[in-house]
Amino acid sequence: MRSDGRQFRDLRAFAVTLHPNKYAEGSVLIEAGNTKVLCTASVEERVPPFLKGQGKGWVTAEYSMLPRATHTRNQREAVKGKLTGRTMEIQRLIGRALRSVVNLHALGERTITLDCDVLQADGGTRTTSITGAYIALALAIHKLAGTNAFDKYPLTDFLASISVGVIQEQPVVDLNYEEDSKAKVDMNVVMTGAGAFVEVQGTGEEAPFTRTELDEMLSLAEEAIQKLIQLQKDTLGAAGERIGRGKA
Amino acid sequence: MRSDGRQFRDLRAFAVTLHPNKYAEGSVLIEAGNTKVLCTASVEERVPPFLKGQGKGWVTAEYSMLPRATHTRNQREAVKGKLTGRTMEIQRLIGRALRSVVNLHALGERTITLDCDVLQADGGTRTTSITGAYIALALAIHKLAGTNAFDKYPLTDFLASISVGVIQEQPVVDLNYEEDSKAKVDMNVVMTGAGAFVEVQGTGEEAPFTRTELDEMLSLAEEAIQKLIQLQKDTLGAAGERIGRGKA
Amino acid sequence: MRSDGRQFRDLRAFAVTLHPNKYAEGSVLIEAGNTKVLCTASVEERVPPFLKGQGKGWVTAEYSMLPRATHTRNQREAVKGKLTGRTMEIQRLIGRALRSVVNLHALGERTITLDCDVLQADGGTRTTSITGAYIALALAIHKLAGTNAFDKYPLTDFLASISVGVIQEQPVVDLNYEEDSKAKVDMNVVMTGAGAFVEVQGTGEEAPFTRTELDEMLSLAEEAIQKLIQLQKDTLGAAGERIGRGKA
Amino acid sequence: MRSDGRQFRDLRAFAVTLHPNKYAEGSVLIEAGNTKVLCTASVEERVPPFLKGQGKGWVTAEYSMLPRATHTRNQREAVKGKLTGRTMEIQRLIGRALRSVVNLHALGERTITLDCDVLQADGGTRTTSITGAYIALALAIHKLAGTNAFDKYPLTDFLASISVGVIQEQPVVDLNYEEDSKAKVDMNVVMTGAGAFVEVQGTGEEAPFTRTELDEMLSLAEEAIQKLIQLQKDTLGAAGERIGRGKA
Amino acid sequence: MRSDGRQFRDLRAFAVTLHPNKYAEGSVLIEAGNTKVLCTASVEERVPPFLKGQGKGWVTAEYSMLPRATHTRNQREAVKGKLTGRTMEIQRLIGRALRSVVNLHALGERTITLDCDVLQADGGTRTTSITGAYIALALAIHKLAGTNAFDKYPLTDFLASISVGVIQEQPVVDLNYEEDSKAKVDMNVVMTGAGAFVEVQGTGEEAPFTRTELDEMLSLAEEAIQKLIQLQKDTLGAAGERIGRGKA
Amino acid sequence: MRSDGRQFRDLRAFAVTLHPNKYAEGSVLIEAGNTKVLCTASVEERVPPFLKGQGKGWVTAEYSMLPRATHTRNQREAVKGKLTGRTMEIQRLIGRALRSVVNLHALGERTITLDCDVLQADGGTRTTSITGAYIALALAIHKLAGTNAFDKYPLTDFLASISVGVIQEQPVVDLNYEEDSKAKVDMNVVMTGAGAFVEVQGTGEEAPFTRTELDEMLSLAEEAIQKLIQLQKDTLGAAGERIGRGKA
Repeated sequence: MRSDGRQFRDLRAFAVTLHPNKYAEGSVLIEAGNTKVLCTASVEERVPPFLKGQGKGWVTAEYSMLPRATHTRNQREAVKGKLTGRTMEIQRLIGRALRSVVNLHALGERTITLDCDVLQADGGTRTTSITGAYIALALAIHKLAGTNAFDKYPLTDFLASISVGVIQEQPVVDLNYEEDSKAKVDMNVVMTGAGAFVEVQGTGEEAPFTRTELDEMLSLAEEAIQKLIQLQKDTLGAAGERIGRGKA
Repeated sequence: MRSDGRQFRDLRAFAVTLHPNKYAEGSVLIEAGNTKVLCTASVEERVPPFLKGQGKGWVTAEYSMLPRATHTRNQREAVKGKLTGRTMEIQRLIGRALRSVVNLHALGERTITLDCDVLQADGGTRTTSITGAYIALALAIHKLAGTNAFDKYPLTDFLASISVGVIQEQPVVDLNYEEDSKAKVDMNVVMTGAGAFVEVQGTGEEAPFTRTELDEMLSLAEEAIQKLIQLQKDTLGAAGERIGRGKA
Repeated sequence: MRSDGRQFRDLRAFAVTLHPNKYAEGSVLIEAGNTKVLCTASVEERVPPFLKGQGKGWVTAEYSMLPRATHTRNQREAVKGKLTGRTMEIQRLIGRALRSVVNLHALGERTITLDCDVLQADGGTRTTSITGAYIALALAIHKLAGTNAFDKYPLTDFLASISVGVIQEQPVVDLNYEEDSKAKVDMNVVMTGAGAFVEVQGTGEEAPFTRTELDEMLSLAEEAIQKLIQLQKDTLGAAGERIGRGKA
Repeated sequence: MRSDGRQFRDLRAFAVTLHPNKYAEGSVLIEAGNTKVLCTASVEERVPPFLKGQGKGWVTAEYSMLPRATHTRNQREAVKGKLTGRTMEIQRLIGRALRSVVNLHALGERTITLDCDVLQADGGTRTTSITGAYIALALAIHKLAGTNAFDKYPLTDFLASISVGVIQEQPVVDLNYEEDSKAKVDMNVVMTGAGAFVEVQGTGEEAPFTRTELDEMLSLAEEAIQKLIQLQKDTLGAAGERIGRGKA
Repeated sequence: MRSDGRQFRDLRAFAVTLHPNKYAEGSVLIEAGNTKVLCTASVEERVPPFLKGQGKGWVTAEYSMLPRATHTRNQREAVKGKLTGRTMEIQRLIGRALRSVVNLHALGERTITLDCDVLQADGGTRTTSITGAYIALALAIHKLAGTNAFDKYPLTDFLASISVGVIQEQPVVDLNYEEDSKAKVDMNVVMTGAGAFVEVQGTGEEAPFTRTELDEMLSLAEEAIQKLIQLQKDTLGAAGERIGRGKA
Repeated sequence: MRSDGRQFRDLRAFAVTLHPNKYAEGSVLIEAGNTKVLCTASVEERVPPFLKGQGKGWVTAEYSMLPRATHTRNQREAVKGKLTGRTMEIQRLIGRALRSVVNLHALGERTITLDCDVLQADGGTRTTSITGAYIALALAIHKLAGTNAFDKYPLTDFLASISVGVIQEQPVVDLNYEEDSKAKVDMNVVMTGAGAFVEVQGTGEEAPFTRTELDEMLSLAEEAIQKLIQLQKDTLGAAGERIGRGKA
């Protein structure tokens, strides 16, 4: 039994509020227990310089924590004058993961930026950001599709993410902050609706882990991610119907 | 009549949600129409270098807009690597205004940082930040008082702020974004519960304004701010009872 | 009586030296007591990106203090690697104030940059910068007019600025550094030749101020600014004759 | 058969030159085919602020590519004024991996910084940096041990790293740059001498991967890393004898 | 004959105004033709970290040009966010040159910072800065000496600097901007009152120069610098009398 | 006799390894005693903005030391976020020196960047960089010439550099780090194959130097540089044959 009463394969309570922002083309407030992330999708009809004239679009992400998202206040990165390595690593991960289910040619010469702003953090902010940003992205693409922007539907599959770890020899899923800080292994997994892996990032800084532990963590993640993808389908409803239909 | 149906002396709907953040010593979500600002107060038991050893505390503020708080997406200041002049100006204003009703000696050698993060912007973000940050500050000081941190109660008065302007020769109060962009004068006023002025900042970049217009705007602001201070009193309830009692 | 013998409505000695710089299109050394500011106007035949192709010009300002303009040496902002909030606030104010009396369409697609470099500071550097920069701007526009650059004369009015404050319950005008540091209220006022307000910025960080004090300060400022505008007219002579004639 | 004639489980030619730098406490030039990384270990008798007074040491890494390490010249990060996200991600990985086999309490209050400077890049620079930096670290610790700096030997195990990927459905090990750019999956694995995992980072940006492909890649990595650890043992000789003996 | 009527060994008109700044411990406005540099010496009773506790002082310099010191406006370094290479090179040169005639032990644990701000530039700004900064430094040391700050007088000699160059095969001294831009060689020389060299910096980017040309330029510089040192002696009067007397 | 057994006019052992980098258009590893510099020449078919459309090319240099090139580790400039003054000064010197022997019109609209990365430093890194970078530049130009890129051969002469100094009244050549730190004068000289001076930079921060000392140092430098140019000729062989033939 875990400190908050969950079994090792239980997810925390996940809640998704659609359209919390009245300007963004897609927006979602996603909550995983006490972790709360505001995700907005912004569409711009231009691409970064390295993609100009290639008939392709781009999907990218930015991640930030409000200064008091955590137990003690952190200095703003805007005040430091630069992004931390942790932030860069996370936003590169989110962008890469989302692009794996977008047909950039079908998207056309436009950029969708997913902003993931953590209002409150209690573990799993990067995986929750991916799961929430996917919904905001799907909403924005659904909205664009309503203007006949696409020949092929650019979203090729669903996508969600979860953390897994090993605490006192027991693999567990969806760690909160307290669990995270005592886990010997910390792994983040991103998978598609079809059940394929997009990212597997496991770190055993405190103690290395065995192949058996790795296998058990992957199985826990697979099970949890399929639940989250079902949640995404339920939440999106009609806005998710065309996902995967335009696949090459 | 104004575009949203208000009379020239009407405030937008103001809503205050207490404690949206479970870690901060004080926190508030304040809404003025479609403008939404999350304000947190963080207490740290240390002071900036320039105050060390003087037996005084410090109150300071930081202000930021989420990238998609506005109609189109803005680049993050953390990505630009520096704060814009507008941000610096606003956060200096918020901090200065709040300090005018804090007895820094009574506060003792601690710092309270007010973070004002604009989730959605529809005009009046700086004045709404001041009004909301005051409540977060009052909550944090009330909480500290519960630990017998103070001899004298450090909050000497209530404090709120509103914008006023002149649109087509008519002074109006609490402008939304659409009104703000067509106003010839833009003025922000901060006042105390006792009805004294703390800040008066009026700008006639588009067209200069007369002494009469200035007087009318000040009167509109006075009336509006007393309504906001009543809202603060109602919202704070018992947490606001000792405000002003420790005044020297 | 004030520490330097002035009455509360007296200005310090103001002196203006024209053309201290042989390269700038307009330049002025302005002295207000011991405050000395070198103001240059530089004309460039291009506009910032946000104005391209609109047939309008731009007027902007930069402000800086030499490191030893003050009692003790300050670190250069170029060494810090960024402008302070104070500098940004001041240069935004100067630019905004000057633009209020420039018809940017009449100016045409060119930029005039006013550099205000404080050689020595004894209070009132921002208001003195505005008053001096206006003269440098007028000289540059007069020079451009000599090349038939304009259909309409772009300067629509005179413009000057002064500080006012409250010291020991007495409103006073044009505070020097020593007075400034003991004033409970600090206000900067910018007005046009026609007697309209362009900027009113009053701050009561040390103690809030009453409506009566505000009114008295505004009256002192009005009187002082009209004296400064007369000084500008006398100094500019023929170079100021067409000011206001091209007004729409 | 691969473009350079290797079988899918073959490593490139690895070469290690000890002591290329006469000042560093440990140094190595490691070559993996055309990839060449200069690794130096620098010992300093102090720890970062967050570790002060805890009786523990620190091991950290920095990574950089010379501007012409690659086919075309890249701008220096010192000229850009900041580290790229890629660099930050890599140096965080190297440091974290190395710390997993160091007993920081046994190390005592000192910092060892591993600088990994890529002189020439042909794929696998981050994994080669880890494998080489480990040897430089081992040399520095061996040297410190010669001065009786330790009660317990701080290195608890060997550690090496390799890349694996999937090219045209075939899992392969130790990809060069050309292979890397056409692989659909890119995975980096770090393991200890005891055969446990320290880091597993797999990315399927181009195409997601199956559990079977993941398993095959992990097996290839395990085999390759054991070969590299043997190379480390042979290279270090007597300098590696005490590794693992001080384990708690 | 040169474009401004001078012979090849003639200096421009040099003028020195003492005490233009009322706060600085020493200050000078130096003019060499149309080149005008404001030099202030600021004394602080502390030393940089690398000198702490050594019983020695420090002399350092900063150099900057006002944006419109030149024919066309230059962007401020504070706006760029960093010093240019040219500025760094010049201020390192000024500091190094001045330190060569200061006995840092005799100075005691204090820092003197020489700020050289170019108000108007017409060639020779770095050499004029050195010659002027020396006088400001001498004034500050003389003032300190009046408070019995020293056992030994810290200034060991006079020091001045001039530029020389080769224009159309003719070595000339003290080049103005127009001459500077057509010279094939550009050399700056710093010498002491005793006639020894402190800095010799010659650059033949446009065309290399011969040993003979080098010798002639050095002789021109020697002659000119002795004139400038005489000017320094005349200007300083009694304030320069103890210079060189405290030499070890 | 010097500490390493050399006579005052003896160079250290110089060694040049051609083509250490397989991507660069020209590359050299140059060693002067224990000083080791990797020099690469990168050709790009574009010019900096200030040269666009002038039919001229550009040659520029960047210089950097690896963090552990020296006795103790130095912080990376990329981590500091800016180049030091020393680095800027050195890379400006290298670029300027190389351009003095390149006919930029003959080079055509392309840029050659010389990267000088110091792997190990034992005095003379800037002069060794110049001597080595020249060879890398010559290799790159020779390679371009093989593609008939030029009408005229752009290299107009050979070029090398050496340091000289005065130790205990004795002028000496090619100082190592230990000598450098006890020399009273430090001078760097750059000369062409024809025996003309390109740069002479002498600094007597510790003690000024006489004209006689200057003359002796220049003579030592002349002799040493001719030896280095002979080394360049021997090393380049056929790749150096056309140097100087295209001179106007």
